[in-house]
Amino acid sequence: MHRNQLNFSGGPGALPDSVLQQVQQAVVELPETGLSVLGMSHRSSWFVDLLAQTEADLRALLQVPDDYSVAFLQGGSSLQFSMIPMNFSVPGAAAAEYVTTGYWSRKVLEEASRVGPMRVIWDGAASGYRALPSLDALDWDTRASFRHYVSNETVEGLQFPAVTDLPGSPLIADMSSDFMSKPFDVRAYGMVYAHAQKNLGPAGVTVTLIRNALLERTPDTLPPMLDYRTHIKHRSNYNTPPVFAIYVMAKVLHWIRDEIGGLDAMRDINSRKSAALYATLDGLREVVDCHAEKAARSMMNIAFRFKDARLDTLFKEKSTEAGLSGLGGHRSLGGMRASLYNAVSEQAVKRLTTFINEFAVRYA
Amino acid sequence: MHRNQLNFSGGPGALPDSVLQQVQQAVVELPETGLSVLGMSHRSSWFVDLLAQTEADLRALLQVPDDYSVAFLQGGSSLQFSMIPMNFSVPGAAAAEYVTTGYWSRKVLEEASRVGPMRVIWDGAASGYRALPSLDALDWDTRASFRHYVSNETVEGLQFPAVTDLPGSPLIADMSSDFMSKPFDVRAYGMVYAHAQKNLGPAGVTVTLIRNALLERTPDTLPPMLDYRTHIKHRSNYNTPPVFAIYVMAKVLHWIRDEIGGLDAMRDINSRKSAALYATLDGLREVVDCHAEKAARSMMNIAFRFKDARLDTLFKEKSTEAGLSGLGGHRSLGGMRASLYNAVSEQAVKRLTTFINEFAVRYA
Repeated sequence: MHRNQLNFSGGPGALPDSVLQQVQQAVVELPETGLSVLGMSHRSSWFVDLLAQTEADLRALLQVPDDYSVAFLQGGSSLQFSMIPMNFSVPGAAAAEYVTTGYWSRKVLEEASRVGPMRVIWDGAASGYRALPSLDALDWDTRASFRHYVSNETVEGLQFPAVTDLPGSPLIADMSSDFMSKPFDVRAYGMVYAHAQKNLGPAGVTVTLIRNALLERTPDTLPPMLDYRTHIKHRSNYNTPPVFAIYVMAKVLHWIRDEIGGLDAMRDINSRKSAALYATLDGLREVVDCHAEKAARSMMNIAFRFKDARLDTLFKEKSTEAGLSGLGGHRSLGGMRASLYNAVSEQAVKRLTTFINEFAVRYA
Repeated sequence: MHRNQLNFSGGPGALPDSVLQQVQQAVVELPETGLSVLGMSHRSSWFVDLLAQTEADLRALLQVPDDYSVAFLQGGSSLQFSMIPMNFSVPGAAAAEYVTTGYWSRKVLEEASRVGPMRVIWDGAASGYRALPSLDALDWDTRASFRHYVSNETVEGLQFPAVTDLPGSPLIADMSSDFMSKPFDVRAYGMVYAHAQKNLGPAGVTVTLIRNALLERTPDTLPPMLDYRTHIKHRSNYNTPPVFAIYVMAKVLHWIRDEIGGLDAMRDINSRKSAALYATLDGLREVVDCHAEKAARSMMNIAFRFKDARLDTLFKEKSTEAGLSGLGGHRSLGGMRASLYNAVSEQAVKRLTTFINEFAVRYA
């Protein structure tokens, strides 16, 4: 499959070539139905089976315990920001606690603060959002409704290490930009959610994993569409789901399982990719700065800039010409950002590191 | 383009072949970007331009007045059911008024009733949801926050005639299943909304048209994601939009404009299609019943059943074998339903009417 550009975009991000080939066929005709995937009824047995199988595949890859429910929703992670306190705030409990580590965890507050009592337990503003706290060292209130953090800050390129056990109120993680990039222990969380458009599929579907006990908190006064129980009860098929996005996600899960070999192998590949890029950037530390402190570095997103800001502009121009797309930093931070999501291959990263070294020799 | 089945599904429905061909290419590589459409950043100039052009194309086709805003949202029409009273209920006004004409307008109530005061001004239950009221004959309360109806009942196959002027509180219409199937006068409405998956694209994006004056009602206490002003202000690009679904919608709008010739031509084609099918069914009235009373018949969805219920089962089986897909009635109503959305061609309807006549001769 030929394509002119390699995709290092912060998201929606690259998808595997083998998935795109299957999708291309399905757009005209799904062999098993004789219809375009874009015109498949969400009540067809084909789609009902696809939903069930996709949930089963996700559960198997992540070893999701039986007492967790899975739902595929619309509205992106951004709609989760308000649905979470709508569903899980406990009247009379202490305020929900939020860890604020960058652009996205601050966006969470804008939505959540309209719904229920909350407090920021840690804020990285003083460091310019370059560092992360140790979650088990924070002064959590055990009476809080829940605790929330963002596992990977896409804009700043900061990533928390795996959480295995953090006693206290239910822990909720926005894993939008590192979900399915490595294994993690679902049991450590009350809820995990992630939109698909980094590691899992196209924009338009969001995965939620919820410990069933939490659902007992949901008030009966919510509109059914904003009540997690509705979507879980109807197996993600209450109103018309984004059929196409779920179909692509199903194919990406198969790719992780069958072509990559599962989440341990996925993590190993992702680890090698980011290590190679960080090594390149560290080798150029006299002319390049990485945004994140070393201990907080993300495997998924690497934000960097030249000490000479004029080189940032030139880098974006020359990298695009060289077929390396999406390397401009987020508009809130400037500089550059390389996103190394699951479907960015090791060969693609090799092309990027080679380009960076050649660029530095020539211009820096 | 070869496909084994013609799609008469209630939705997601058929899309035009010429659109599917462009989409097929774009899944691998958009010629203008060198990237898969599934991996295009929503902040790329390509997508920002696509959003602006798609809004402009929609405005031109529908002659949307300048004092209306357009937003492309997620969550389907079902999320609109609660967002509408969240945004447009006026404290102290009389209850919002809802016309209840079938399955979908009853679903609206389940969501809306959780949010604000409402009353049902007309209910078609007594007639088995086979008939529609005359909207201008209802006893509307001019002090109501707004009035809501569903322009086409997808399940029962009932469709209101065009509304041109209905003085009183703002009129809001769920046009999910007949939007872009014919012209209508946007000025008659405070708000119109429609998900894409009938006449406009794949599931995953919902179009809203809102008279700007209504937005002054929206309280500042809503989470930004549930506040229409957020999405309008950010030109449908606040959080990550469903890039792919919007891309397909853009291509369908071009198809309506360039291949069909606009909404007047679209209506004429749709009118001929449904007339041909109703004529066939009326010709078989000794063995077949149409669900809708004649005055309420829909151009989009035709629900019918055999007087001998055993023939319904046989019809579904034989029609699928004959390459006519999706003719089973909605699970709430049974029988059959033929959906004749924009992308169902006149030739496809001809194959359907021929099949029905042959089936009746042989089995009825």
